[in-house]
Amino acid sequence: MGRSHGIHAEPITFGLKLASFYEEFKRNRLRLVRAIEEVSTCAISGAVGTFANIDPKVEQFVAKKLNLKPEPISTQIIPRDRHAFYFSILGIIAGSIERVATEIRHLQRTEVYELQEYFSKNQKGSSAMPHKKNPILSENLTGLSRMIRSTVAPALENITLWHERDISHSSVERNIGPDANITLDFALVRLSNILDNMIVYPEKMLENLNITKGLIFSQELMLELTKTGISREKAYKIVQAYAKKCFAENLNLFDVVQNDKYIIKNISQQRLKSIFSYSKHFKHINFIFRRVFR
Amino acid sequence: MGRSHGIHAEPITFGLKLASFYEEFKRNRLRLVRAIEEVSTCAISGAVGTFANIDPKVEQFVAKKLNLKPEPISTQIIPRDRHAFYFSILGIIAGSIERVATEIRHLQRTEVYELQEYFSKNQKGSSAMPHKKNPILSENLTGLSRMIRSTVAPALENITLWHERDISHSSVERNIGPDANITLDFALVRLSNILDNMIVYPEKMLENLNITKGLIFSQELMLELTKTGISREKAYKIVQAYAKKCFAENLNLFDVVQNDKYIIKNISQQRLKSIFSYSKHFKHINFIFRRVFR
Amino acid sequence: MGRSHGIHAEPITFGLKLASFYEEFKRNRLRLVRAIEEVSTCAISGAVGTFANIDPKVEQFVAKKLNLKPEPISTQIIPRDRHAFYFSILGIIAGSIERVATEIRHLQRTEVYELQEYFSKNQKGSSAMPHKKNPILSENLTGLSRMIRSTVAPALENITLWHERDISHSSVERNIGPDANITLDFALVRLSNILDNMIVYPEKMLENLNITKGLIFSQELMLELTKTGISREKAYKIVQAYAKKCFAENLNLFDVVQNDKYIIKNISQQRLKSIFSYSKHFKHINFIFRRVFR
Amino acid sequence: MGRSHGIHAEPITFGLKLASFYEEFKRNRLRLVRAIEEVSTCAISGAVGTFANIDPKVEQFVAKKLNLKPEPISTQIIPRDRHAFYFSILGIIAGSIERVATEIRHLQRTEVYELQEYFSKNQKGSSAMPHKKNPILSENLTGLSRMIRSTVAPALENITLWHERDISHSSVERNIGPDANITLDFALVRLSNILDNMIVYPEKMLENLNITKGLIFSQELMLELTKTGISREKAYKIVQAYAKKCFAENLNLFDVVQNDKYIIKNISQQRLKSIFSYSKHFKHINFIFRRVFR
Repeated sequence: MGRSHGIHAEPITFGLKLASFYEEFKRNRLRLVRAIEEVSTCAISGAVGTFANIDPKVEQFVAKKLNLKPEPISTQIIPRDRHAFYFSILGIIAGSIERVATEIRHLQRTEVYELQEYFSKNQKGSSAMPHKKNPILSENLTGLSRMIRSTVAPALENITLWHERDISHSSVERNIGPDANITLDFALVRLSNILDNMIVYPEKMLENLNITKGLIFSQELMLELTKTGISREKAYKIVQAYAKKCFAENLNLFDVVQNDKYIIKNISQQRLKSIFSYSKHFKHINFIFRRVFR
Repeated sequence: MGRSHGIHAEPITFGLKLASFYEEFKRNRLRLVRAIEEVSTCAISGAVGTFANIDPKVEQFVAKKLNLKPEPISTQIIPRDRHAFYFSILGIIAGSIERVATEIRHLQRTEVYELQEYFSKNQKGSSAMPHKKNPILSENLTGLSRMIRSTVAPALENITLWHERDISHSSVERNIGPDANITLDFALVRLSNILDNMIVYPEKMLENLNITKGLIFSQELMLELTKTGISREKAYKIVQAYAKKCFAENLNLFDVVQNDKYIIKNISQQRLKSIFSYSKHFKHINFIFRRVFR
Repeated sequence: MGRSHGIHAEPITFGLKLASFYEEFKRNRLRLVRAIEEVSTCAISGAVGTFANIDPKVEQFVAKKLNLKPEPISTQIIPRDRHAFYFSILGIIAGSIERVATEIRHLQRTEVYELQEYFSKNQKGSSAMPHKKNPILSENLTGLSRMIRSTVAPALENITLWHERDISHSSVERNIGPDANITLDFALVRLSNILDNMIVYPEKMLENLNITKGLIFSQELMLELTKTGISREKAYKIVQAYAKKCFAENLNLFDVVQNDKYIIKNISQQRLKSIFSYSKHFKHINFIFRRVFR
Repeated sequence: MGRSHGIHAEPITFGLKLASFYEEFKRNRLRLVRAIEEVSTCAISGAVGTFANIDPKVEQFVAKKLNLKPEPISTQIIPRDRHAFYFSILGIIAGSIERVATEIRHLQRTEVYELQEYFSKNQKGSSAMPHKKNPILSENLTGLSRMIRSTVAPALENITLWHERDISHSSVERNIGPDANITLDFALVRLSNILDNMIVYPEKMLENLNITKGLIFSQELMLELTKTGISREKAYKIVQAYAKKCFAENLNLFDVVQNDKYIIKNISQQRLKSIFSYSKHFKHINFIFRRVFR
């Protein structure tokens, strides 16, 4: 089921959800490649960047050996806007990780339960509540994402150094350098493992699609009614009234409208069934997949 | 004077400082172009991104008209990692603005006073202290940079939305969208005005170069001594002792070493003068300029 | 139903949830009172805080008139650690608002639907999907919370000013001062309105309690078994096996264990019913309420 | 010299600077005590906080033993607004540390050099530039402050947990708990050592006071002129003109005004000398000290 605001909206496929994540990580991969390029420069230009006591050829020679680009103009150090860019990208990737982790946590809720993080045979759940299977890996990723994102602010502050460098950035980088990179690596591996081993419950997905008993098709019913000659306002009111009734009395919208003479008269039974079917929600899925995976 | 840790290091030219900023803003310009590309996508894909009730051709048509790229896979909205990238770039540019602003503030300090923000004839300084001319524009930019940078964190949090979208990102973007863009635009215009109208005091720059009375050349003197046959350790100790003496008694290093028989005997007067000259610090400036401005 | 990790844990009352929020906002109220005290100081001490041209009695007089405390030692301004404290408290309150807003959003999910933000008669839901009632106010609060929290970082950066003051903090405070206060005020009023007008569905709460068909009582069943003379390990295995069976076959745990001869023989029917009842989960609720509301 | 905007304003004493820091850390100490109180609570209330399987007396007993207060109402855990408060206070203290560190770095600038971080006999400065003595400890504190402040944002995000707890806060706290506390402890010890061993140059302080050659007394001269019967506007113009002349020609204001017949006639030589003296800037210092150290 597709949901906006946490509320059932229109059907979707689970593959589409995953494809959306896939496309986002394609972007992240490209960003990371560029970020690595950004920080892969070499500066051997002396105490304030003037090459006063060293020939620029040394810089060029070393840069080539290390497969780096010479920094066009350095101070005592490589300018820190480059590193700020790098850590910003790590922060964005962390955000994407949290997006996937949050989706998993939502879909594993007891009331939703469309999937479940893998739970090994020997793994104990809660020692007090043995029936529980918690999405602890995804929750962990949510927290780790906060940690990685928190390194962006100090990285941005590091850009402003006094004159040809002060060393305030150093203690920051000694912390966030290893921490953000290692944490992100760990998080990516963990995310990958979660996705590889995730248990998916398609029956429950279908069950959830039917929770609202056809209300999710109200839009198309309304649109169809406007084709029969009545105004959109009137069509809206008719359908809304039936929707309220269904919700209040726990009825199925398809059954309820069977008793409406105007509808029965103006919309064929075949058309009515097609309105209450999933097929149209699937018809462009392959098109989207081709855009993502071509 | 080039400074690291706020302490005089080796000579530099003022043009080199500016060229360093110029190069950084070249990078920022490219980043901004890419960031605009990142968010210039178009999604008209329905309530959950399935094109259930709309043909993908509409999206393609509108995208083309608006000079946007169709979003390969959207939910109810365009994924927010794109916007996080955009605001991260604004944050980095803000950091670069603060770097320049901080340099100006440092160079306008009473004790340094190598330059000054333009001060119009009719402008009053402090009403209480009429002699004061404060770098208030650059200080303002420092604060505005903090504001722009502070929008990165909520933009990163916006990536994680529930399922096919929740609307929590909206109030954030309605704030940071106009605020960060307008503030950055204002800050860039202000920075540009500051640089256009800045008053530079070259005599004071020269004066500051001489504050340490030649101590800044101690390194080259030491290196020269090693060529006369004594060890680096011994050369270091000799020069260090004279440096301390100069600092303590406010003497000129060049004058002081004139009394050292070993030095006088082993280093020609012409060579000694060349050690205490600025020329070698300038010799590669043009090379660097070519790298930046070619 | 009480939930940890998004998974059903043990029963709770809805009042207890609200009381938890109430207690948190009691703390926040006290914090805010202290934060206001912190920034309610008065400094009229001259250009650098020395009272060189003004008598300290003026400061004392004005402070008294304005119901402020004289700042014990000021520079040109009141030290900004006070304001950092103030904005930190706003950030914490924003976090608490988001906590409540997130709870509401969760409980209004289609699959959970234990409550609903008030929806006025004339209010349209989604124009495309008229059956939808989205928790947009709570989602809005989630975003506003991000905004308020984002003011903490620049407020912390404002503490460090150069010497007896630089004016970099000013543009920050002119932004975050009105923005954070007005946004928080708006958010608190909105939250209050949401809670006042919220529609609660107790039947759905009861329904959700039964989703797992008694699995939530497995812990007590296991504990009871240990009293019959078997080890905890054995008791755990017995109950876990039945729990798995119930989950897989969608059975009721109470019914299933009726067929276990050992259980039937060793645990009386009355005791068994009491294990599968909610009463013990309520017995200390009043005690907690007294702690909160006394 | 007292400075605002990095520009000489009015004289101050060095003790007053330190007293300002002292007072700020008095506030920080009190905040920390309260923050520790805030997080010193005890919760043993079961899986969702209902004491369903444990008597509240256990909580009370353990709390008393551990010198903690029972948490009035807990979920599965102690509410995280308490911890957010704690880390916010660490962030504020970090800001104060950076304020002191920045002051030291400014005062050790080559052009200012009113003080210097202790430099042990065996300590090498720059290996390339042996005359350099850099304020590296204070620069380090500047960076560490950034690190500590960066923990506030994730601590604020931790407040919002799902229902009766999700475990996303855990990985955050396992990082920022030790990191922020240990880093702050280290930073406070380092700051204390810097202040204990700092070398102060009072002669240089006096020298810097005289850099502007009496311009810093222009305000009082102007005020005195208004007492002789001319308007403030006229007095301002007269003094401003002399101030400009002094700055442009590097003259001493006291000497220059000796040639103004009106001034000489209307202001006694004794009064003129008192205008150009520091005494009035010191007269309330003891009063301030009593407010801070009583």
